[in-house]
Amino acid sequence: MRTPISVVAAGLAALLTAVPTFAADALYSERELQTAAWIRDAAADGNKAYAILESLTTEVGPRMAGSEGDARAVAWAEAKFKELGFDKVWKEPVSFPSWQRGVERAEVLAPFPQHLVVTALGGSIATADGGLQAEVVAFDNLDALKAAAPETLAGKIAFVNKPMRAFRDGHDYGPTVAARGAGAVEAGKKGAVGLLIRSVGTDSDRLPHTGLMRYDDKVNKIPAAALSVPDADLLANMLKRGQPVKLKLEIGAKAGPTYTSYNVIGEISGTEKSSDYVLIGGHLDSWDLGTGAIDDGAGCAMTMAAAEFLNRNGLKPKRSIRVVLFANEEQGLFGGNQYHDAHVKELKNVHAAAEADFGQGPVYRLDSHVKPQALPLVKQMQQVLAPLGIEAGGNDNSDGPDLRAMNMAGIASFGLALDGIDYFDLHHTPNDTFDKIEQARLNQSVAAFATWAWLAANSPTDFGSMGDYLVGKAKAAQH
Amino acid sequence: MRTPISVVAAGLAALLTAVPTFAADALYSERELQTAAWIRDAAADGNKAYAILESLTTEVGPRMAGSEGDARAVAWAEAKFKELGFDKVWKEPVSFPSWQRGVERAEVLAPFPQHLVVTALGGSIATADGGLQAEVVAFDNLDALKAAAPETLAGKIAFVNKPMRAFRDGHDYGPTVAARGAGAVEAGKKGAVGLLIRSVGTDSDRLPHTGLMRYDDKVNKIPAAALSVPDADLLANMLKRGQPVKLKLEIGAKAGPTYTSYNVIGEISGTEKSSDYVLIGGHLDSWDLGTGAIDDGAGCAMTMAAAEFLNRNGLKPKRSIRVVLFANEEQGLFGGNQYHDAHVKELKNVHAAAEADFGQGPVYRLDSHVKPQALPLVKQMQQVLAPLGIEAGGNDNSDGPDLRAMNMAGIASFGLALDGIDYFDLHHTPNDTFDKIEQARLNQSVAAFATWAWLAANSPTDFGSMGDYLVGKAKAAQH
Repeated sequence: MRTPISVVAAGLAALLTAVPTFAADALYSERELQTAAWIRDAAADGNKAYAILESLTTEVGPRMAGSEGDARAVAWAEAKFKELGFDKVWKEPVSFPSWQRGVERAEVLAPFPQHLVVTALGGSIATADGGLQAEVVAFDNLDALKAAAPETLAGKIAFVNKPMRAFRDGHDYGPTVAARGAGAVEAGKKGAVGLLIRSVGTDSDRLPHTGLMRYDDKVNKIPAAALSVPDADLLANMLKRGQPVKLKLEIGAKAGPTYTSYNVIGEISGTEKSSDYVLIGGHLDSWDLGTGAIDDGAGCAMTMAAAEFLNRNGLKPKRSIRVVLFANEEQGLFGGNQYHDAHVKELKNVHAAAEADFGQGPVYRLDSHVKPQALPLVKQMQQVLAPLGIEAGGNDNSDGPDLRAMNMAGIASFGLALDGIDYFDLHHTPNDTFDKIEQARLNQSVAAFATWAWLAANSPTDFGSMGDYLVGKAKAAQH
Repeated sequence: MRTPISVVAAGLAALLTAVPTFAADALYSERELQTAAWIRDAAADGNKAYAILESLTTEVGPRMAGSEGDARAVAWAEAKFKELGFDKVWKEPVSFPSWQRGVERAEVLAPFPQHLVVTALGGSIATADGGLQAEVVAFDNLDALKAAAPETLAGKIAFVNKPMRAFRDGHDYGPTVAARGAGAVEAGKKGAVGLLIRSVGTDSDRLPHTGLMRYDDKVNKIPAAALSVPDADLLANMLKRGQPVKLKLEIGAKAGPTYTSYNVIGEISGTEKSSDYVLIGGHLDSWDLGTGAIDDGAGCAMTMAAAEFLNRNGLKPKRSIRVVLFANEEQGLFGGNQYHDAHVKELKNVHAAAEADFGQGPVYRLDSHVKPQALPLVKQMQQVLAPLGIEAGGNDNSDGPDLRAMNMAGIASFGLALDGIDYFDLHHTPNDTFDKIEQARLNQSVAAFATWAWLAANSPTDFGSMGDYLVGKAKAAQH
């Protein structure tokens, strides 16, 4: 049995007081690294993430931006931060256009009548009352759709049937999700009356994956929906027979009013430089089909639990640790962009940032985006994290959709890369529920975030946030 | 590369002609066993089952008894038997009361509003218009519900939350499905207004499992539905908090008119005793949520393909091989019972029977229900099948729901036990679709059925069908 945490913490607090001032080029001291190693092991052994996530998924559940669940999630987050003992808890408004799901039905009318399982893509318009009926034309991917001759799709439904492969880093998401984002515009240009895509997912469950799509005001808008993977296979099998396949598609989605939600924030105050902070977090909103356990309840829970773990064990960081639960990531990064805008004059206070938005973990690699002089510190961080199975990454981190605007401005950021091998089995589906969470995976992620946040907050030097190197790099990337 | 089948078949046909008359106590000859071994290996290498099943699930799909899909399935089966070259194809009428699914919705009203995924159990009545609203009372299993004091459930919804464990032989199905069958009656006795069960399944997908339930005319009838496994977990997590949980349940199911479907039958005629036949088959109907790939498209496809394989290769059996695709198994074994009744005077012609209704396989054990004198033949069969990984079972086979009535009368039957370790992940859910079929598993099952059917049809003696031993055993079992 491990030494009781309170005893160790008391000892550590005494040790920490004795640490001398860092030299300008200082590395982490042995004592600091020992503290970090204790955090790593003790947090992996047990923390509150699993209970926090159970609470969020059970007591709130679906919390699509702009829905009733959104407001319940904000209230839950504020209350939970307070219950967990955070020093400061507040919220910052984020406004955005809302979208509402309605009826969604698809059926094959001929030659083989049977129903298909679909879900509207986020942002889709509705079909006319009673739905639309049209023949289906299949494409292997978005490029094939783009290559179709103009007006070849007149009056038809375009069906993009690109399968997605599973990788730990999810690198097939980008090439696959392209059709979800741009398919309706490309199909609309060719005269199509609707878009169907194969779900952007690596499972074979009869559960469709929703997700955001875009329109172009210069192109005729058409309803857009995803078939579950088995339904995409079924439709493809029908089409193989060479006869025209006629579908009926009924989508009742609609735009709602402008809605104001909140980034909800909890902070553990730093003991020395409290205006500087390490930013960790995830996004509080989810899609509506599941209860948002892996996307992104897990990211919220693991970062809340990481900060809470330090605080509960008397480990007061030198700089503050701020947990930001971003509003409406799913429908356009509204929370992350708003956070950037609201804090644009004080981004130098973001000492370092790391977001968790790729499932429950475990964390398998540490990436960074810091000034070169700070790389020895990153190496020390990775060495402490190595016993968790975390390898060294590169210095081009761009992880975290809600950090994108701040990364583009030049903050120092880190990527604690979460293992996404099964993430896209569940992502944006009804199957994103709490029963999929494996406590050991979540605990490892909390250990990584707690250890990293501690070391980042107590670093002997800065990481170059908003300094010449990172700002220059960011500007170069934008050109 | 294997010797072309046609060459081997021609050689075998010559060999078979030369086989001498069997003595009364004869075993299978070495030549017959060699033929069987060739069938085993060649059928495992390739056969039409996968293509047949693709055709059924693509061109027909859901085929719930009494639905439009039922009629399409009957037409498909007749046409497919003819296309596959069966010597005789016919159908026999089967009438039953039909049932129709309607709207199905559940949501938690308090204390944690969110929707739950449910499906009506087959046979359920509807809720009153607008649904019902009531508090939930949970029970660990049917026995706990039965043990509740009279009227303790007055005005409430009973929720039976028994998980099911996965085993190759599915032996946890019986103890778990008890609540699906009898839960509404037992809850109705205590004054409940609705029944919810945890889906009878071994998955954790947000897809509920439907299946038949029963009423008792002496007990108040209440609507009955299944929550998906994740939703049962979610509801249980809410209940753990100790506050009353209030649900809204809306079920729109209703009884339909009496419907006449058909047992569809294809036969390969025997060369010597064509009025005697080996009966193999599965049930043609499915539930409505999926496309009935594993339940029981697989059983239909593997038995059709097994008989077709023999016929296509010129292997003419001495006795006939009859493939019966039973109507409406799911809602009360109507097809099997009707087959028994229609053929009750000629059950002695059922030389041996084996049904496939437990998924795609592989077959892992050979059970029998034969006269003791025939057991040496069963042993020889198993020895031929052993290279497929098929072990010896016992002589108390009762496999095959559609054979139940005939087994109870005293026919000789066999069980080619299908590996059901993942069967209840998909059973009766939308996820029962063709993409779940692994061709190698299906091929092994076809090889087992083809080999067994050949040996059964060519057996040197009878297996005791309707003889004193089996009739006596059946009578004893009924007492």
